[in-house]
Amino acid sequence: MAEIGEVMDHLADERRKAEFDVSAMKVVWAGSRHELEITDRMARIVASDPVFRKDNRAMLSRKELFKNSLKKAAHAWRRIIELRLTEEEASKFRSSIDEACYPDLHWGMFVPAIKGQGTDEQQKKWLPLAKKLQIIGCYAQTELGHGSNVQGLETTATFDPETDEFVIHSPTLSSSKWWPGGLGKASTHAVVYARLITNGEDHGIHGFIVQLRSLDDHSPLPGITVGDIGAKFGNGAYNSMDNGVLQFDHVRIPRDQMLMRISQVTRDGKYLVSDVPRQLVYGTMVFVRQTIVQDASTALSRAVCIAVRYSSVRRQFGSQNGGPESQVIDYKTQQSRLFPLLASAYAFRFVGEWLKWLYTDVTQRLQANDFSTLPEAHACTAGLKSLTTSVTSDGIEECRKLCGGHGYLCSSGLPELFAVYVPACTYEGDNNVMLLQVARFLLKTVSSLASGHPPVGTASYFGRAEHLMQCSCEVRTADDWLKPSVILEAFEARAARMVIACAKNVSKTSVLEEGFSEFSIDLVEAAVAHCQLIVVSKFIEKLQQDIPGNGVKETLQVLCSVYALSLLHKHTGDFLSTGCINPKQASLANEQLRSLYAQVRPNAVALVDSFNYTDYYLNSTLGRYDGNVYPTLYEAAWKDPLNDSVVPDGYHEYIRPLLKQQVTSRAARL
Amino acid sequence: MAEIGEVMDHLADERRKAEFDVSAMKVVWAGSRHELEITDRMARIVASDPVFRKDNRAMLSRKELFKNSLKKAAHAWRRIIELRLTEEEASKFRSSIDEACYPDLHWGMFVPAIKGQGTDEQQKKWLPLAKKLQIIGCYAQTELGHGSNVQGLETTATFDPETDEFVIHSPTLSSSKWWPGGLGKASTHAVVYARLITNGEDHGIHGFIVQLRSLDDHSPLPGITVGDIGAKFGNGAYNSMDNGVLQFDHVRIPRDQMLMRISQVTRDGKYLVSDVPRQLVYGTMVFVRQTIVQDASTALSRAVCIAVRYSSVRRQFGSQNGGPESQVIDYKTQQSRLFPLLASAYAFRFVGEWLKWLYTDVTQRLQANDFSTLPEAHACTAGLKSLTTSVTSDGIEECRKLCGGHGYLCSSGLPELFAVYVPACTYEGDNNVMLLQVARFLLKTVSSLASGHPPVGTASYFGRAEHLMQCSCEVRTADDWLKPSVILEAFEARAARMVIACAKNVSKTSVLEEGFSEFSIDLVEAAVAHCQLIVVSKFIEKLQQDIPGNGVKETLQVLCSVYALSLLHKHTGDFLSTGCINPKQASLANEQLRSLYAQVRPNAVALVDSFNYTDYYLNSTLGRYDGNVYPTLYEAAWKDPLNDSVVPDGYHEYIRPLLKQQVTSRAARL
Repeated sequence: MAEIGEVMDHLADERRKAEFDVSAMKVVWAGSRHELEITDRMARIVASDPVFRKDNRAMLSRKELFKNSLKKAAHAWRRIIELRLTEEEASKFRSSIDEACYPDLHWGMFVPAIKGQGTDEQQKKWLPLAKKLQIIGCYAQTELGHGSNVQGLETTATFDPETDEFVIHSPTLSSSKWWPGGLGKASTHAVVYARLITNGEDHGIHGFIVQLRSLDDHSPLPGITVGDIGAKFGNGAYNSMDNGVLQFDHVRIPRDQMLMRISQVTRDGKYLVSDVPRQLVYGTMVFVRQTIVQDASTALSRAVCIAVRYSSVRRQFGSQNGGPESQVIDYKTQQSRLFPLLASAYAFRFVGEWLKWLYTDVTQRLQANDFSTLPEAHACTAGLKSLTTSVTSDGIEECRKLCGGHGYLCSSGLPELFAVYVPACTYEGDNNVMLLQVARFLLKTVSSLASGHPPVGTASYFGRAEHLMQCSCEVRTADDWLKPSVILEAFEARAARMVIACAKNVSKTSVLEEGFSEFSIDLVEAAVAHCQLIVVSKFIEKLQQDIPGNGVKETLQVLCSVYALSLLHKHTGDFLSTGCINPKQASLANEQLRSLYAQVRPNAVALVDSFNYTDYYLNSTLGRYDGNVYPTLYEAAWKDPLNDSVVPDGYHEYIRPLLKQQVTSRAARL
Repeated sequence: MAEIGEVMDHLADERRKAEFDVSAMKVVWAGSRHELEITDRMARIVASDPVFRKDNRAMLSRKELFKNSLKKAAHAWRRIIELRLTEEEASKFRSSIDEACYPDLHWGMFVPAIKGQGTDEQQKKWLPLAKKLQIIGCYAQTELGHGSNVQGLETTATFDPETDEFVIHSPTLSSSKWWPGGLGKASTHAVVYARLITNGEDHGIHGFIVQLRSLDDHSPLPGITVGDIGAKFGNGAYNSMDNGVLQFDHVRIPRDQMLMRISQVTRDGKYLVSDVPRQLVYGTMVFVRQTIVQDASTALSRAVCIAVRYSSVRRQFGSQNGGPESQVIDYKTQQSRLFPLLASAYAFRFVGEWLKWLYTDVTQRLQANDFSTLPEAHACTAGLKSLTTSVTSDGIEECRKLCGGHGYLCSSGLPELFAVYVPACTYEGDNNVMLLQVARFLLKTVSSLASGHPPVGTASYFGRAEHLMQCSCEVRTADDWLKPSVILEAFEARAARMVIACAKNVSKTSVLEEGFSEFSIDLVEAAVAHCQLIVVSKFIEKLQQDIPGNGVKETLQVLCSVYALSLLHKHTGDFLSTGCINPKQASLANEQLRSLYAQVRPNAVALVDSFNYTDYYLNSTLGRYDGNVYPTLYEAAWKDPLNDSVVPDGYHEYIRPLLKQQVTSRAARL
């Protein structure tokens, strides 16, 4: 037991092996010195504040968990004001708290919806209230029976010209609003999406600001039934959030609470469309999905950080002459599962950074009424949302498995991270639906090639379709696979050939929609190939920039190759069946991969240190910075409520009678 | 709200579509009429008993959950006695309760360990106590620092000839026993694995029966520190089990509590090995892993049942002329993810059935001192354990995602099913370690080909290695892929070529172990190919038997083809790079798959009905037999403790002050 209480860095040897400048890599990961400084400062303030404690989350009951999250939200608001944080700092402060709660929706959905869809007048009225938290808002779109298909929503908003009001109503059980975060217990207001009906005509889905609860005593207003939808995946995880159910029984709101920037209803019930382009809505989608890609790299890197550190501490098998066993991270099979995820975390970081630029670019174009790049930007963000969240979900669980049995304990941090992360595959566009949207865009791109429309942005490689359909891969040695141009052409050729093959198959069917449906499985695979190409190409572009710091660029080059070649290995079938590479070249790629893993190995711990996560943030017995895993696991165990007493509650009623053979009179006779 | 309370079968249309006799398929799934009858009867008794209620599991605190599981265990024991159940019935009764608790380990590990490793005398003493539950036992093998590598365990059992006792001791923190189920709070005894030391010599790991707690008041005996290791993945899930930590401080036990069937320590401390073959231990492993494969088919089928039924109820997009939207199960992309899992559930069922036979066969041979098939049987069960549990874990999560947002609610049953299932990938042999063992066996098989040892059982296809290395696939039309012989040869050729390529690479290295390590990634992939072949071949063999029931065999043939061709599609890279098939044939396989999915579609609901699961067992708002999903989801939501009050606990302290701008004096001034 001598180990308990020791203070030493069990990973010091690992850190000495690093071949690059960790502090420079931290800047690369954060995006800039400025970002690193703010993130670091906010993370430390939160980590040192006992109110934000989270190591007990998995042990709290639902009610305790929820109340605690309200406490944290209130304390965060107080601290943000006291510390006079800028908007940028406040946002990082909130995300450092790492607990799902109503402010996520208030700041992330309610405020942006009013900004994006409200008239200037509406913004002037509602934004100050929201920004001071005089009202708390959520975003009530999905219904019990309606998720992905927004056009299928059933809630109605019927204009009553007599009173100049809208009547908001839930006509069926399946029209109950269902899932909105912050709705169940916390919000006073919601942006509610409903079918606008005026003069007996259905004008489709529009947004309305609806007050839900009294600002005096928080009781639901007349006609409103609201509550929480119940426990979700994981112990703590997303259960700190009050995802809600909401039903309207003919609730009346003033006409001016319809969000009227894009379309209006006049006093006499006429429906008008303003000259503000509808495409602005897509701009918001690009923004939201861009943040989701950033969040994916954060969640994945966090899981990878835990798994890399623990794999460096954990020893199993391979003891020679009674010496210590081998570090688990030295096993090739461990490396082949862990290092591609490490590389993916960096890849997603860089593609996320590029998406920020894309959003700025799209916004500027929209302001200049240039909608030409919007379909491409929309497809690109939809696809990357799908790709990065799927890989991250699976990757977190893979990291958990790579931690063996101990990864199954909540104290490892991984079960909670998985459970809180997985909804990202479903919210803001189901991942499979997203890929079908990408596929549609790709088919359109191919069909417009003939009509001379040059493809733009991430689809511009289709401009070289003729070359890509017949080019052959030049790889002759394993080292040839390190050339960015070789990688890029292989990924471009694979995507182009898959998409064009689909397009040909679809065009053979008489009805386009039937063909789309019949070949949708292939189309989804082609869309994935396209999205992977985007990530690979943005990683390569990143490395064409100047990146300061000793060994930093070289190490990232290794990761870039790991990312691309591990994908190529996983999807060898695609590359071979489209003839982009031959079996010998596939085998050389594997040979190169093995060598790359050996190059990542000494840098692995330093590469996860570069994420700059505090132990508080990781909240993991296995992922601690100092690697002091076993004493920490041991101490964490004793904190479980079940250990409050040595003899468990229930012993006298349910164990002792068995042992004493007093279960039933008949049992005693047996 | 009119839907609430309606009693009708929302899936009646789906059931009418079925093209086979569901009651006959139920017999096939259960294994026999006898099995079906018992399983069905036990399931119904449990389902109708309010003590076994489980729909509130996700809402209980850890202590409540644990106490409730003790209650269920005691009640089950009482009912088993009252109903005078046979051992077979009792076992099915317990598994119908579907809650992890100490009896799992008592009956599943403690009793078998004494049976397998105890002398006749020891069995005579301990088994009656265990069988009457006068003692409760667990199986204490793994330690904080030692999981897969049993030879690395640190706990010592040192013989003291002066007192004729063993001194059990935990010399380090990392030697603390860690994970054993039932240990933390319930067990009075344990079979403890420790290094046997006598006369200063270490004889490796042996089992010892150690009493842990007083039989009078359940307090831990002197020198014993024991407790629970804390919260695990999931809300309820495995948290009903008291996985434990255990430390010994020089605890003394009589010499005759060493399990002495295979080796003994004499009164004067001599270590003797009996003539009972050590290989018997492997026989037990074959047994345990066989049950794990059966459990995999149960868990996977349960998830698939929920996802298939809900996909048939859920409608999204595709509304034409204001009609209802399309059933989600009609989307090809949904089918391509769901139907291979449905086929896998059946495939695992049949391979599990075959493993039962294998266990009987191995046991009979061992009794006749025939060890010739043991390595093959051992590799086969290790590999199938790994393959089926990995696919099942991923498959449950895939089914959850296929249920969209609602799958994230605990009331869907899927989060809990996943969380309670995933440890199967780690316990009883980490899946990756298992595959490496299979790989070792395969390398040995290949190397002994030269020496004229004919390979046996599932490895016998290596006897045709010469043919398999050069054969070419005869597929010319999509329908050719329906021929079992074609499928079998493709899978055999793929596995043989991958294994032999690895063997060649490994043999090039000077030290075998280094070669094994260097090519371990490829070896694992080859092992997977071998295991998939076993499952495919056992499915095909099953269909060569007589299977009664209208349309039953035909439907299973479709599933068998779906299983094989979806694997072939997923691993196209393997098949192409080894030259087993060409790109055109890969494309024909996809074409055939599309057609097969269309054939599964009308039978999907009937195929999951054939599992014969009660609504109680599924415990899923989405997977109900009657498909009445939405009212059930709605009602389940209101049961959450957070809905006990309309205004949440915490409002006055943490929400109202914000809304009223009373956070800080400074805040009021802003």
